[in-house]
Amino acid sequence: MRAVLTPQDQDFPRWYQEVIAKAQLAENGPVRGTMVIRPWGYAIWERLQAAIDQRIKAAGASNAYFPLLIPEAYLRREADHVEGFSPELAVVTHGGGKELEEPVVVRPTSETIVNSSFARWISSYRDLPLLINQWANVVRWEMRPRLLLRTSEFLWQEGHTAHATREEAHSYALGILDEVYASAMIEELAIPVFRGRKSEREKFAGAEISWSCEGVMRDGKALQMGTSHELGQNFARAFGIQFSDDSGQLRHVWQTSWGASTRLLGAMIMVHGDDHGLRVPPRLAPVQVIVLIARDGEGVSEAAKALVGDLQRRGPRVELDDRVDISLGRRITDHELRGVPVRVELGPRELAAGQAVVARRARGSKDTVALPELQEALPRMLEDDQHALLEQATASRDRLTQRAQTVEEAKEIAGKGFARIAWRVCGSDGEDELARSGISVRCLLREDGRPVDRPADDDVEALVARAY
Amino acid sequence: MRAVLTPQDQDFPRWYQEVIAKAQLAENGPVRGTMVIRPWGYAIWERLQAAIDQRIKAAGASNAYFPLLIPEAYLRREADHVEGFSPELAVVTHGGGKELEEPVVVRPTSETIVNSSFARWISSYRDLPLLINQWANVVRWEMRPRLLLRTSEFLWQEGHTAHATREEAHSYALGILDEVYASAMIEELAIPVFRGRKSEREKFAGAEISWSCEGVMRDGKALQMGTSHELGQNFARAFGIQFSDDSGQLRHVWQTSWGASTRLLGAMIMVHGDDHGLRVPPRLAPVQVIVLIARDGEGVSEAAKALVGDLQRRGPRVELDDRVDISLGRRITDHELRGVPVRVELGPRELAAGQAVVARRARGSKDTVALPELQEALPRMLEDDQHALLEQATASRDRLTQRAQTVEEAKEIAGKGFARIAWRVCGSDGEDELARSGISVRCLLREDGRPVDRPADDDVEALVARAY
Repeated sequence: MRAVLTPQDQDFPRWYQEVIAKAQLAENGPVRGTMVIRPWGYAIWERLQAAIDQRIKAAGASNAYFPLLIPEAYLRREADHVEGFSPELAVVTHGGGKELEEPVVVRPTSETIVNSSFARWISSYRDLPLLINQWANVVRWEMRPRLLLRTSEFLWQEGHTAHATREEAHSYALGILDEVYASAMIEELAIPVFRGRKSEREKFAGAEISWSCEGVMRDGKALQMGTSHELGQNFARAFGIQFSDDSGQLRHVWQTSWGASTRLLGAMIMVHGDDHGLRVPPRLAPVQVIVLIARDGEGVSEAAKALVGDLQRRGPRVELDDRVDISLGRRITDHELRGVPVRVELGPRELAAGQAVVARRARGSKDTVALPELQEALPRMLEDDQHALLEQATASRDRLTQRAQTVEEAKEIAGKGFARIAWRVCGSDGEDELARSGISVRCLLREDGRPVDRPADDDVEALVARAY
Repeated sequence: MRAVLTPQDQDFPRWYQEVIAKAQLAENGPVRGTMVIRPWGYAIWERLQAAIDQRIKAAGASNAYFPLLIPEAYLRREADHVEGFSPELAVVTHGGGKELEEPVVVRPTSETIVNSSFARWISSYRDLPLLINQWANVVRWEMRPRLLLRTSEFLWQEGHTAHATREEAHSYALGILDEVYASAMIEELAIPVFRGRKSEREKFAGAEISWSCEGVMRDGKALQMGTSHELGQNFARAFGIQFSDDSGQLRHVWQTSWGASTRLLGAMIMVHGDDHGLRVPPRLAPVQVIVLIARDGEGVSEAAKALVGDLQRRGPRVELDDRVDISLGRRITDHELRGVPVRVELGPRELAAGQAVVARRARGSKDTVALPELQEALPRMLEDDQHALLEQATASRDRLTQRAQTVEEAKEIAGKGFARIAWRVCGSDGEDELARSGISVRCLLREDGRPVDRPADDDVEALVARAY
């Protein structure tokens, strides 16, 4: 059988482009670097969005919406911030048929505009903590765009909070990293992540400390999947956000910001996808079970419809594929490409034997199951396969991650995977040297998972890799 | 007691501005015409969005996402479309630190960019109907902005569909008007709407026929609350969207587009709001019941918490207000301003008597209810109050709508409400005359509700009013 996709081993970037196109996930927009998210891709995003949104609300934050257009002057108020984002800005110079007196930028992120509101909303310690999130599009002009990973416009959520103390901001930023991001990545996307602190070189423009979740793609490269920043009082000073504490004294607030985007779909593709196509984790799959009428006749159609109805009543998201005028092989290829977790095939022969063929995408397995058992078995299979994907991804991550004793060795390992190296061995000099080979320190972390407060501590390691 | 808001009778526009500010629904952004939707406003929008989204999916459409930035040349492909939108465009001329070779516009609506994808996605009758929706922000430069009603950026959904025949497109456009828009407005927003056809003067730039839902605000002015357009083959020809029919012949598709936006929040405010503040329909209220500890002591706090817990388990969205350091009067004023449907007050005296005070925002009523009955009664009250709001809004609409025999009379009636006048009496000459007084034909409709296929028919009436 002719392969539908370029094998991953042969050309991973090409496989990535092909699977996105053939699974109808997304495509390029006409303006360079922009993208169209097609219905199958968007339906996965909607489920992921709901899972993240639920966790954000559980962390006490409320959704709101801030304007797309920001006065250019706002960005200039925080020196590091404007320096970091200036090269990526899209600038609106004309509106309503006239040249604008002051140009406005399309938001690349919303710290500045959110904090201009916070300055009005906060006056007393009673107004704190203020915990806000928004779901929005942002624009960052991309010179080397790549669908879903690096696009000139992307969709994301960005959280913005203000607290009375540094300690509270610190623990909130870490809480988001763990209970929102890592939790959604592990539980929903079935992707294990390294959690750590960004180096000074890699931190967010305007932050004091940045934390991130880093995923290990199948090709051994890193993908930053979510970041949470401690902004200190940088924006509070720039925008004059003060509160009177309980003794009546005016103080600047301590802030965090944090975001995760549609690039998570890119992670799903590159962690779980194989040479047959996507493998969508069951919890995120818009269609969890596809029931195929392999060949019609002898009551198959009626039996298949009854089966679909029964299954739907039990909860799983089930669809019927009764396009018998298209060859079974081609339909199977399509569902495999799109990554539908479970495929049930029913034809006259199976029906006569009182069974169906069940193929599970996560395991590459194909078995016959007695029809009366199917309804009980399917929800359990979906749960099992969700875990199977996480286990496979964890094994792959562990296989791709090695310890290095020297910067030279780290460089070699990072040619095909992740290196862990003591930060006191690497240091910022080692980091600069790695950078010259296109390798970066993804984050600083510890064996036991405790967050890195002081990078100089002896047990701090750098996680080193090439990155998307 | 000092009024918290300017009374509606005295100055309705001022009341509108004040209630939005004091209920913390929204505020102006720094770039003229933009807005911040604050958490209370956004939480109402999220519920409305979910209600509309559910209906859109029931109508068979799938969500997707198209780029914010559109090449200017795309807009010029449909002559009426570019003429209609040119004066409102925001134009990006610089990206990534350089002047762009071709300027791009920030989408004012997405017909052009969506159809450039449709041209790739559609080739056969098997690809039809193609039913797509997106939730997005759009930018239309506003000279006279008004919060939530007319803002330079707003949030909306826009549907875009392609069909094999004109008849199918026609019936889909009307289906959206009835089963998505009118249904959500009546059932969720508790707002009755006039459904009708736009006059040639008022139709969408690029449409053959536009349909709309028109709401009657408390001040007698109209608000267009949702529109559904039959685009004919205008965009299909402009973007080359063709399909081969079952005999292999190439044909252009027939299309619809339809949208509803955050201005629906403006309708909610202006239809249900009163001199005390908002009245949020229970189905959309982020908090349906607020339980106030009127005064603490004698086990009130414990009883209130137990009550809140019990109620939450039964389904209603309940919150506790235990801020006893703020005066009861001020807290009541706040909850009334925000439009929380039901307020339960509990103090030592009520608790001793085994009862609570229950105030219902929709009715302006205040009663004592025995505590054991409260849990049963509350869900019913919320449903009743949802209906009460719809009844009140319907009575108000009927009171504000009168029949006119002449254009002169219609003009007089439209000074304070809606006029219905036979379209053969008014006609486009009458429409032009009314326009000189700032009055417009909101839509063409029939007494019996049948859609207007031929405006020239004898029983077609024009609905005439001033509009937001």
